[in-house]
Amino acid sequence: MTRFSNSVANLRSSEIRDLMSLATAPNMISFAGGMPGNELFPLETIDTIYNSLTDKEKQVAMQYGPTTGLPNLLESLSDYLGAKGLPVKSNRLIITTGSLQAIHILAKAFLDPGDPVLVETPSFIGALSAFRAYQANLVTVPLNGDGLDIGQLKKRLENTSPKPKFLYYSPNFHNPAGIIYSEEVKRQMVDVLKDQEIPIIEDDVYSDLWFHEEDVPKMQLIKTMDPEGIDVCFTGSFSKILGPGLRLGWMLVPESIYRKCELIKQSIDACSPSISQVIADKFIREGHIHQYVAQVRDEYKRRGAAMIESLEACLPEYVTFEKPRGGFYTWLRLPEGADATEILKKAIEKGVVFVTGKTFDPDGIKNNHMRVSFCNTDVETIKRGIPLIAEAIRDILD
Amino acid sequence: MTRFSNSVANLRSSEIRDLMSLATAPNMISFAGGMPGNELFPLETIDTIYNSLTDKEKQVAMQYGPTTGLPNLLESLSDYLGAKGLPVKSNRLIITTGSLQAIHILAKAFLDPGDPVLVETPSFIGALSAFRAYQANLVTVPLNGDGLDIGQLKKRLENTSPKPKFLYYSPNFHNPAGIIYSEEVKRQMVDVLKDQEIPIIEDDVYSDLWFHEEDVPKMQLIKTMDPEGIDVCFTGSFSKILGPGLRLGWMLVPESIYRKCELIKQSIDACSPSISQVIADKFIREGHIHQYVAQVRDEYKRRGAAMIESLEACLPEYVTFEKPRGGFYTWLRLPEGADATEILKKAIEKGVVFVTGKTFDPDGIKNNHMRVSFCNTDVETIKRGIPLIAEAIRDILD
Repeated sequence: MTRFSNSVANLRSSEIRDLMSLATAPNMISFAGGMPGNELFPLETIDTIYNSLTDKEKQVAMQYGPTTGLPNLLESLSDYLGAKGLPVKSNRLIITTGSLQAIHILAKAFLDPGDPVLVETPSFIGALSAFRAYQANLVTVPLNGDGLDIGQLKKRLENTSPKPKFLYYSPNFHNPAGIIYSEEVKRQMVDVLKDQEIPIIEDDVYSDLWFHEEDVPKMQLIKTMDPEGIDVCFTGSFSKILGPGLRLGWMLVPESIYRKCELIKQSIDACSPSISQVIADKFIREGHIHQYVAQVRDEYKRRGAAMIESLEACLPEYVTFEKPRGGFYTWLRLPEGADATEILKKAIEKGVVFVTGKTFDPDGIKNNHMRVSFCNTDVETIKRGIPLIAEAIRDILD
Repeated sequence: MTRFSNSVANLRSSEIRDLMSLATAPNMISFAGGMPGNELFPLETIDTIYNSLTDKEKQVAMQYGPTTGLPNLLESLSDYLGAKGLPVKSNRLIITTGSLQAIHILAKAFLDPGDPVLVETPSFIGALSAFRAYQANLVTVPLNGDGLDIGQLKKRLENTSPKPKFLYYSPNFHNPAGIIYSEEVKRQMVDVLKDQEIPIIEDDVYSDLWFHEEDVPKMQLIKTMDPEGIDVCFTGSFSKILGPGLRLGWMLVPESIYRKCELIKQSIDACSPSISQVIADKFIREGHIHQYVAQVRDEYKRRGAAMIESLEACLPEYVTFEKPRGGFYTWLRLPEGADATEILKKAIEKGVVFVTGKTFDPDGIKNNHMRVSFCNTDVETIKRGIPLIAEAIRDILD
């Protein structure tokens, strides 16, 4: 009899995967994924980079590197983040094997079994699974259109003992809710948590993908504000601005947290893939990243607009949503009591999939939302697929 | 005040790194590392592979893959391991971000704080750090020239309560001890542990690097014996037979363990680097691996022979060692009570480094050994460096 650890009992496979295994239609349209479209990867640029590598650089790509990252990439990424106003000089950067690993390492650094952590409802499923892996007590704070409900945050803090170990949040083009946090809400969060000495994990992987330049000023990160008296652990990723297959992310954290996280990373995978780091460094250092981000931003904007148009044309009036202003996702609100799982089963019959709301509910219950992604389907497919989504909703709810 | 988790307190940075930061000589000769020589990587083959990739394959390389690995690599690696006699059909394979991640995942799957685990003295430092990260109680069993001391293993089992969660061991060209386990010892281990229902983690990353073909039959893995009634978790790596910078390893485990490990990996980094997996798949599938392994095996054999020759010529007679028959390491035995750290400090003054014995002692105490690697230094450098090592020993111990 194999005797597993207690923490493993907390981990579950996601409903979407279980349901997808039932899906047999050959040309399934997927609004489920959170990945870039395959056709958007900068293959020519990667070819140019690969073919320009010296033998010495290729040797570095094949060799172990330092646990915290290759010096070249730390330098170029530091410049990239510094130019966005992030406090790269007063904090330390660690290259991680995707930003999920950064979140996982922070979870391991802070959490003992049963420790409370503050999370948004809804929240990024990957972070929830990292926190569950350390048997966290997920204390939920609902999300409004402009960010965390501050009144509810205060109430949770009053009623939670011991004090939560950190708050995890995602400021821009939230996964799954699609929202941008207002400056006011971010300021209030800092004030509330600073008094309590509760660190913030700020997970920002979509902010380069804005559709409207006028939104940029209000997307300022708490890490950029660099507020005194509060530890902000900033995490980010190359997955949305280069390619998730490289498995590269980062964390920018205060020195004391850096030292612990380095030791944890050393025990997890020793170092992040050097081959990916060599490519990512050149991608930033040679300036390709600016042109590429501008290009995919335009394409996601086109897809987002097509999705908004289709949704407005097809959805029953009892389904509401905020128009996405960037990122990858639209978050549809169904009437109270509706069950997105029933709609998903019907949608699969029609050849289209999305992700149910309860997947992102830390309590795994609230299911009257649907996450419909526009990142990985072209405009034509969006126009074909969204009417099927609307049909599935009507079949179940009308 | 940042409040870290209890498990983090267990993690320490290694002495070698702390000492190395003191080393300032510009042309330091390193017998410390456990990495292949940079000049040995198959750069031309990697170029050929990269340039033969279709756009579709490059897209796969840039995209997320399944948590357990890209289907192509799972297939080709399965064939590769199956040809070695590993039970790939009755077990499940997971591609991991280096074999250290495989060990880390297994530690997480099995360990609650304080759980005992059986480890060799000396033992692989990476595994020890993964077990410490889960607050394991490291129960040590001494290593003889033919493997674990079975009498001591039985004694530890009698005296350890609760029952150890698993035994971790490394069968071939042990890191750091350099030994090959005998078939007899492996059979006895199975008998002892099967009775107690204690799983084995069998970590085998060097076995392709034998110097004498006649050793191959006795290097049979416990996983290959596929003994009934005992869970054997086999781990391996591309680091020594292709390149550690790819960060690719694997585990081959029974179905029930596979399911838990998949969920854990999902929470750690979602999937291993696709770009590395695409390259590794071609490297195996197109047969390059056989030629390459034969080539590096020859080179390591030359380096190992040069090291043996230099050591025999220079070492004082009170330092003894087993001649390495493969792998990366020579393990020098100093007189009882000698302190390898003192020798290391002296060696650094002379421009040469190695790793102290206590680094590999699970208790971090026993220090009358030195690990001297021959993997990452060419024959000429070995001939220059070993006399300096011998000088440092004499300076301290004579």
